[in-house]
Amino acid sequence: MNTTFLKACKGEKTDYTPIWIMRQAGRYLPEYHTIRSKCTFLELCKNPEQAAAVTLQPIDILGVDAAILFSDILVPLEKMGAALEFQEKRGPIFLNPIRDKNAVDKLGIPDPEDDLGYVMDTIRILTKELKDRVPLIGFSGAPFTLSTYLIEGGSSKNYINTKRMIYEAPDLYKALMDKITDCTIEYLKGQVAAGVQALQIFDSWAGVLAPCDFEVAGIPYVRRIISALKEVTDIPIIYFANNGATLLDQSLTSNADVLGLDWRVNLQEVIKKVDGKVSLQGNMDPLALFLPDNKLEQRVTNVLEQAKGARGHIFNLGHGIVPETDPAKAKLAVQLVHEISKKMR
Amino acid sequence: MNTTFLKACKGEKTDYTPIWIMRQAGRYLPEYHTIRSKCTFLELCKNPEQAAAVTLQPIDILGVDAAILFSDILVPLEKMGAALEFQEKRGPIFLNPIRDKNAVDKLGIPDPEDDLGYVMDTIRILTKELKDRVPLIGFSGAPFTLSTYLIEGGSSKNYINTKRMIYEAPDLYKALMDKITDCTIEYLKGQVAAGVQALQIFDSWAGVLAPCDFEVAGIPYVRRIISALKEVTDIPIIYFANNGATLLDQSLTSNADVLGLDWRVNLQEVIKKVDGKVSLQGNMDPLALFLPDNKLEQRVTNVLEQAKGARGHIFNLGHGIVPETDPAKAKLAVQLVHEISKKMR
Repeated sequence: MNTTFLKACKGEKTDYTPIWIMRQAGRYLPEYHTIRSKCTFLELCKNPEQAAAVTLQPIDILGVDAAILFSDILVPLEKMGAALEFQEKRGPIFLNPIRDKNAVDKLGIPDPEDDLGYVMDTIRILTKELKDRVPLIGFSGAPFTLSTYLIEGGSSKNYINTKRMIYEAPDLYKALMDKITDCTIEYLKGQVAAGVQALQIFDSWAGVLAPCDFEVAGIPYVRRIISALKEVTDIPIIYFANNGATLLDQSLTSNADVLGLDWRVNLQEVIKKVDGKVSLQGNMDPLALFLPDNKLEQRVTNVLEQAKGARGHIFNLGHGIVPETDPAKAKLAVQLVHEISKKMR
Repeated sequence: MNTTFLKACKGEKTDYTPIWIMRQAGRYLPEYHTIRSKCTFLELCKNPEQAAAVTLQPIDILGVDAAILFSDILVPLEKMGAALEFQEKRGPIFLNPIRDKNAVDKLGIPDPEDDLGYVMDTIRILTKELKDRVPLIGFSGAPFTLSTYLIEGGSSKNYINTKRMIYEAPDLYKALMDKITDCTIEYLKGQVAAGVQALQIFDSWAGVLAPCDFEVAGIPYVRRIISALKEVTDIPIIYFANNGATLLDQSLTSNADVLGLDWRVNLQEVIKKVDGKVSLQGNMDPLALFLPDNKLEQRVTNVLEQAKGARGHIFNLGHGIVPETDPAKAKLAVQLVHEISKKMR
């Protein structure tokens, strides 16, 4: 198996910089559309054979150094009892936003095998398929990010309902976060038991919190999850606080092995700050895949140059690849990362 | 006249910390709705008497230390020749997005008095009305932010069309930015001639750019605007790069007197970085106005504590006040800033 990704996560020497791409199994690939066109998004998440098939596509097509389970961070919330729909234009919708004690009390903690068996089955298929190829990354959302979907009822512009609950009803918010955290711990433990070789915790909306609020409403729950996981496994754990340039000191206390970084930060400044404590993952702007080839090469080189001195570096985009991307450009980026980083060693 | 705001902008001593609030003339005030209910948003912007009336409302109701012209950053773009509509749910829409040379070539440079006389008239009414009260702030959008609206045709999620133009057609993007910049210089010079006593340049979406892209597509145009203005006036100029924590070094090169800061940054870290070169404006999360009174007091105190050591500090929210805000809370925040900062002197 190609273990370059796992080694970089743990800060061990590698011959080149490994790369995977957030949303690498997704809408920019015609091969994905072929499968996705026959069912809804949630049906695809719940069909182990098909979910495994789309997970494998970018491994064959792009040549990335890790696979990431095809699923969605909201999948476990549905099994907590929050009715979920994906609407074609509006994205995810929770039909009954969670905004009072009654609603929080009703939420349950799903059992990974009994309630989310389709995810565990997908992982089992994939670990078999990937045995001689690349590691499989499992994942979850971070509790703050998950809470925003439950409280807002979907995506949000300014997260007013979430922040109001944090400010006006901190005990209620804590009760909700405790439940989401417990659910996430069980869910990720289930993924580990089913065979994933790394985990990523996506805090997609952490960046809307002021550091003083992240300190109370964000990072303690991430810390609790990682601490619980570290008791049962030593696989690498990646924490990605999107738009989290000002949350870095706190993110470091998560005890993650790797911090994911969006494209807004200068890796050199981050490297100084983290002082060899963690590996770094990121951070090219996803839209940079629209650059002409020669400029893309320059951009890839810049990111690799900036990453020099990191304990370990996993190349990635700073956010998910966008559906309009030409797969050939993604493939070129993977080749460039491999070639240029090999020369830099 | 209460010149506390102007003094803080220039780094002169003040008896207390001045405060104004982004979008202080707006939808959270019932008095605003009374006027706004009789016309469309754009009609209100174009009616000098009514625009002046809503500008004055928060001065009376909240007791803030500065007035900001009621208008919209997109108003001059309409007069460049880009047909603009404000739709109730969707926000601003440019009916014909600017995406090719032909469209850029057709854009004109409006004359402040001939084409945007209603803005200049509003300023003239206000400088008379505010003579013995507080200074009037004029404003514009920054070129990058304005370009996103023109290119995307409205708001955007990932600014794909804008970034594609920057990456795929840099010469076309530069031609567009040159025109927007020239327009903005004339527009702001017009506002100065009409009597504003300070200017703010809103770069609402600067934070979606990687530092290396901001260096090319963002900050040079802001620098050009401020440089042109400094030739004709010495009124304070505020540059607000929203979500710009990682763009601070470059923002400093704008030559603005004041940098506006959103709630994500720690003011102490910014103060170290700017090293007395500029005053700072910000940076409480707008949603903090939903905190209970005692916790709001704590939050205001924290921001004022963090601002200690700044050359000058103007209290503000880190982004516009949201429509759901209770005006009584905004008024309380103003009082708290005045009282607590007086005690801290």
